[in-house]
Amino acid sequence: MLKYAMIGGGPGAFVGSVHRNALALNGDAKLVAGCFSRDLEKTRAIGAELGLAEDRLYATPEEMARLEAGDVDFAVIVTSNEAHYPSVKTCLANGIHVMCDKPFTVTSAQAEELVGMARDSELVLAVTYTYAGYPMVRQAREMIERGDLGEIRFVNCEYPQGWLAEMLETTGHTQATWRADPKRSGGVLSLGDVGTHVEYLVPFVTGLNLTRLAARLDTLVEGRLLDDNGTILTEYDTGARGMYWYSQAATGCVNELKLRIYGDKGGLEWFQEDPDHLHYTPIGQPKQTIVRGAPEMLPGAMAYSHTPAGHPEGWLQAFANIYTAFCATIEHGAAPDFPTGEDGLRGVRFIEACVESSRNGTSWIDF
Amino acid sequence: MLKYAMIGGGPGAFVGSVHRNALALNGDAKLVAGCFSRDLEKTRAIGAELGLAEDRLYATPEEMARLEAGDVDFAVIVTSNEAHYPSVKTCLANGIHVMCDKPFTVTSAQAEELVGMARDSELVLAVTYTYAGYPMVRQAREMIERGDLGEIRFVNCEYPQGWLAEMLETTGHTQATWRADPKRSGGVLSLGDVGTHVEYLVPFVTGLNLTRLAARLDTLVEGRLLDDNGTILTEYDTGARGMYWYSQAATGCVNELKLRIYGDKGGLEWFQEDPDHLHYTPIGQPKQTIVRGAPEMLPGAMAYSHTPAGHPEGWLQAFANIYTAFCATIEHGAAPDFPTGEDGLRGVRFIEACVESSRNGTSWIDF
Amino acid sequence: MLKYAMIGGGPGAFVGSVHRNALALNGDAKLVAGCFSRDLEKTRAIGAELGLAEDRLYATPEEMARLEAGDVDFAVIVTSNEAHYPSVKTCLANGIHVMCDKPFTVTSAQAEELVGMARDSELVLAVTYTYAGYPMVRQAREMIERGDLGEIRFVNCEYPQGWLAEMLETTGHTQATWRADPKRSGGVLSLGDVGTHVEYLVPFVTGLNLTRLAARLDTLVEGRLLDDNGTILTEYDTGARGMYWYSQAATGCVNELKLRIYGDKGGLEWFQEDPDHLHYTPIGQPKQTIVRGAPEMLPGAMAYSHTPAGHPEGWLQAFANIYTAFCATIEHGAAPDFPTGEDGLRGVRFIEACVESSRNGTSWIDF
Amino acid sequence: MLKYAMIGGGPGAFVGSVHRNALALNGDAKLVAGCFSRDLEKTRAIGAELGLAEDRLYATPEEMARLEAGDVDFAVIVTSNEAHYPSVKTCLANGIHVMCDKPFTVTSAQAEELVGMARDSELVLAVTYTYAGYPMVRQAREMIERGDLGEIRFVNCEYPQGWLAEMLETTGHTQATWRADPKRSGGVLSLGDVGTHVEYLVPFVTGLNLTRLAARLDTLVEGRLLDDNGTILTEYDTGARGMYWYSQAATGCVNELKLRIYGDKGGLEWFQEDPDHLHYTPIGQPKQTIVRGAPEMLPGAMAYSHTPAGHPEGWLQAFANIYTAFCATIEHGAAPDFPTGEDGLRGVRFIEACVESSRNGTSWIDF
Repeated sequence: MLKYAMIGGGPGAFVGSVHRNALALNGDAKLVAGCFSRDLEKTRAIGAELGLAEDRLYATPEEMARLEAGDVDFAVIVTSNEAHYPSVKTCLANGIHVMCDKPFTVTSAQAEELVGMARDSELVLAVTYTYAGYPMVRQAREMIERGDLGEIRFVNCEYPQGWLAEMLETTGHTQATWRADPKRSGGVLSLGDVGTHVEYLVPFVTGLNLTRLAARLDTLVEGRLLDDNGTILTEYDTGARGMYWYSQAATGCVNELKLRIYGDKGGLEWFQEDPDHLHYTPIGQPKQTIVRGAPEMLPGAMAYSHTPAGHPEGWLQAFANIYTAFCATIEHGAAPDFPTGEDGLRGVRFIEACVESSRNGTSWIDF
Repeated sequence: MLKYAMIGGGPGAFVGSVHRNALALNGDAKLVAGCFSRDLEKTRAIGAELGLAEDRLYATPEEMARLEAGDVDFAVIVTSNEAHYPSVKTCLANGIHVMCDKPFTVTSAQAEELVGMARDSELVLAVTYTYAGYPMVRQAREMIERGDLGEIRFVNCEYPQGWLAEMLETTGHTQATWRADPKRSGGVLSLGDVGTHVEYLVPFVTGLNLTRLAARLDTLVEGRLLDDNGTILTEYDTGARGMYWYSQAATGCVNELKLRIYGDKGGLEWFQEDPDHLHYTPIGQPKQTIVRGAPEMLPGAMAYSHTPAGHPEGWLQAFANIYTAFCATIEHGAAPDFPTGEDGLRGVRFIEACVESSRNGTSWIDF
Repeated sequence: MLKYAMIGGGPGAFVGSVHRNALALNGDAKLVAGCFSRDLEKTRAIGAELGLAEDRLYATPEEMARLEAGDVDFAVIVTSNEAHYPSVKTCLANGIHVMCDKPFTVTSAQAEELVGMARDSELVLAVTYTYAGYPMVRQAREMIERGDLGEIRFVNCEYPQGWLAEMLETTGHTQATWRADPKRSGGVLSLGDVGTHVEYLVPFVTGLNLTRLAARLDTLVEGRLLDDNGTILTEYDTGARGMYWYSQAATGCVNELKLRIYGDKGGLEWFQEDPDHLHYTPIGQPKQTIVRGAPEMLPGAMAYSHTPAGHPEGWLQAFANIYTAFCATIEHGAAPDFPTGEDGLRGVRFIEACVESSRNGTSWIDF
Repeated sequence: MLKYAMIGGGPGAFVGSVHRNALALNGDAKLVAGCFSRDLEKTRAIGAELGLAEDRLYATPEEMARLEAGDVDFAVIVTSNEAHYPSVKTCLANGIHVMCDKPFTVTSAQAEELVGMARDSELVLAVTYTYAGYPMVRQAREMIERGDLGEIRFVNCEYPQGWLAEMLETTGHTQATWRADPKRSGGVLSLGDVGTHVEYLVPFVTGLNLTRLAARLDTLVEGRLLDDNGTILTEYDTGARGMYWYSQAATGCVNELKLRIYGDKGGLEWFQEDPDHLHYTPIGQPKQTIVRGAPEMLPGAMAYSHTPAGHPEGWLQAFANIYTAFCATIEHGAAPDFPTGEDGLRGVRFIEACVESSRNGTSWIDF
């Protein structure tokens, strides 16, 4: 079993425990070291709770990377956004493979540097675009690859949430506070937090490459400093077109990522809150509901399905699937079947392009 | 009971029978005269089927309007788009109230002229934006009026259909052929056919006035001459923002008009294919499903609800509700509670603005 | 156009206007006479509202039947249950075809007598089991007829409502009061009101004939005199089995009639609150959603579909479809494609068998 | 961290890996020993794959229990049904706590003996009625406890599956073969496999105690030796009534466990295939959808919710919740918050009562 260290994921940061549980679920790797917080006392408290040895709890990522080099297989970076870059860098510099949360970095220059470092040192660098881990997202991808939809003409991907419909960032809410703080989140709020999931998911599933975009970023909640909503028109290399909508101020929405794809032979629809079902309509025929685990699953997707049809799998299983693929690459050199540093870099460039377009009155930006 | 004449609605034009059934449903008016086709023989055949007197079947709208003036209360115009203008004009010129199908006219100059004629002659001029007739659309409108959503921040209205995902216009398909013909439809295809419903519905429900838009019209199906898909970014007088998406090439979609509205106190969602339910989430509380006919219906909406909760009403009932309000204005001078000629004019201006924006690279157009 | 008279359907009895609107919708027949209430003043008030001639408003059904014989084609009986029998009888005795609301009569002896009268005098006698008028119910029937489900093994039909979860019958509520009164409803409450719909629908769709049943009728609301809930185990001539559940005390349910049928080649599911969709699963394949109006509709069902796919039809259209078939038989001698007096008789026998079984401790009763 | 051994769960028995993953998910316990098959070679192969020490892989449960006594905290029994009894017995006899799959035993005498052994030796004995581990099932239970539904009047719990709509047991299908074999499953097929989940769930959520039942067990698939479908009428200590339906021959159903509860103040509905949502209708008000993780969650349920609202949890999380509570009792003496041996015993008695009732023509059996 692989061994890993974690950077970030301290108290109040639920995402740390999500990564740990995802890694435990399939027995992929064992946590052995950590720097969970900028505050060593907090790191020690969490380390004790998790049963880690005291001498493997560190004050800084740099110290940890230096001393754990050779003793851990990879590091998981789950800090706030602005701290991703130095954390990833120190790990790579010490020869440690890295899984980093998204959005990858604050600037594309940072991302380019990290991607270059990983490439030069032949280290595995991955980014947790979790939704790519859902079996039915994989099923959609495989169906499109084998031509079930024909040529894709239009993609509509939306990701509305509602939890920031109130000004939580002034109430002491941990998650909201750093995300809404321009210094800590990296210049955008919801575009980084949810919009980048959309950016990753569309080409992952469709194989389309984005060539142009025009974006309007909105701040719907008065007093907020960054975007909490946005609409993006897209064009792809094949001539296909699309539109993205993301929001964290869509009052009443929970976590409503939805992907709809229309081709000349059929249409597909997938909804994250009901992740085990994929809705497929071959042109001129009735809509079909493909269930995770059912015989019509294609082999690549089926490999990521663990429980029988009708026994729901959830978000954590999607997370675990990303990690299982990541660990397989580290351990056996399996072909990467997870979001890579290059994908993370493209996500940061997407953010920068959207910001530029929006500042210029929704002008078209080549991508 | 009022008496009416019909222009258009001949063989293959299902919408004629829809208007007739809608008028019959609530016993609002009786059909007494018609010019159903450019071909008098066809008009006579339909007239015979409908039990009309032979001498009240006419070769041209002009003849009918002249000879029926005083004998019919109103005329229903259900021709192809380009024939709306002359048909409405001749009716108004002869003192006949008019209900016209949408999109109202081909140019806004035509629409302005007709609106002016109606105003000057104190005639009732209405346009069948049917979806405003659904009781739960009315319920949404009343809930917003009384403040259930607080200040509206964002509106997402989409209307995808899939029936034009194939090149039906070259197969002899009646509906597709005239709609896709630039000469008969008036310069746009799907924007007129479904996009205008979106344009009407949003201000009807929210009370917001559109001030700016930026549009991209797409032709997704190869060989088609006009738009079959489009995305429109919007801004309103209150500062609220929105986005519209319409399509007739969304493979596998049926008639999926959906309206979502987000305010600072709550969110609303309504879906045309399940028209008897309205989904309302007060901020911080569970989502509620309001059922047509249930006690929580507000009085204005309830007045348009005819069957008990759980006994579905449909599209024809929405149609009939528009006509009931229209007839009440003609018969009793009731305040107009239906889409008017002014609304139709605004819809044509919307089309023109979208076309201009799209031609100019999705530039912002004041509205 | 046929002419008809109505018995019952006075103030507070919404079902009268439903029948009238259903008959108007497709232009099947024109109301010309009525005895809407036991109180002639009320009948006159309603008649005036409906534009009937004063001399065609009657104090009693008997008087009306006698004086309208030859002048009306049929009568519609929408009184409370116990008055069905004398009203139908007087109409048949005067040579008037009859459409009667359900449950048909209070005793099976009454029903037998009426069925015999109609047969002897070659009159059309029908009963408004409305749900058989839905196009997708027809589609299910045709799919089963042509073998899509193979041999049927099990049927689950349920019809829960919640409006009688409170003791409305002691609050002056018109609908509840007569239904819950043993003298006026005929010995059962919900079994007659909703349970009989289940009894009719199952053989209509499946072609199965009930051979045995075991029932438990419940009174869930304290103080109520009759059943408001019941469960019935069934067996059919082919060896297939089934279960029915009906309720009017299922708190929170609206009008949730659901039919599920399982055969050795496939399964079907239909839900009355979403009547335009039929869910079909061929064994070993994905579930399909068949939409009313779509190409996969079979011809018999399609003949009852009026608006394009995605433009919802509702309960009133189902009602109108029953009437259209009824009128076609009267007018053109078309083969009866509607629920007949025999069906009504079978429904009353079903009620009697259920009551007997329930009194005998859920014993099995041959049917 | 606790240590455990596993009995059963060999190749083809997917449930073994489910239990192992569920125990890994929350880090509750570590697998250290196993007797996965009657065939030691198979046990060794699986043990090697799971990284167990060779000397902790055993030929028989008895040997394992004897040699591991004191070295493991508990044993997990996931054999076919008929082997539960001896496996549990040998573990308890050696002082090892036990988690056993359901149905608990073949006869109630066996279950009584095991429950007595556990009581006498103060060992924890639990049964994996998984569905009780879902947070929204807990939420329903707490809402009922605090009176949100008032007095419960009727319960409808159904559990249809369709995977045995074909004669899989003669095709070599592992899961089907032992379940459908009277010798290995213990006299019933689907009643044990899915019916017992219904039996457990209803009192768990409602607090009602079953006092009488009348059952009809069906064999819908020709050639099958045991039941694959059944309907059960129930009565409870408070006078409330209910009905259960279970099936594994409901063609097209996946895993459609649904629980509906009707009280005098409200109704609740929960569907296993959409486990994160609970539908609640307070009498006279709109239906509400309560989402797992949302503020309206009650504390007991919230304690079992791990990921934020809108990030779906699934079946494995429910499983893990059962284990977390089980381990808390073993480790800290926490009050048992999981299905116990007594619950398992009641389930076996339920099976026996249903079989007896069905043999006697659906007669009423006191429970």
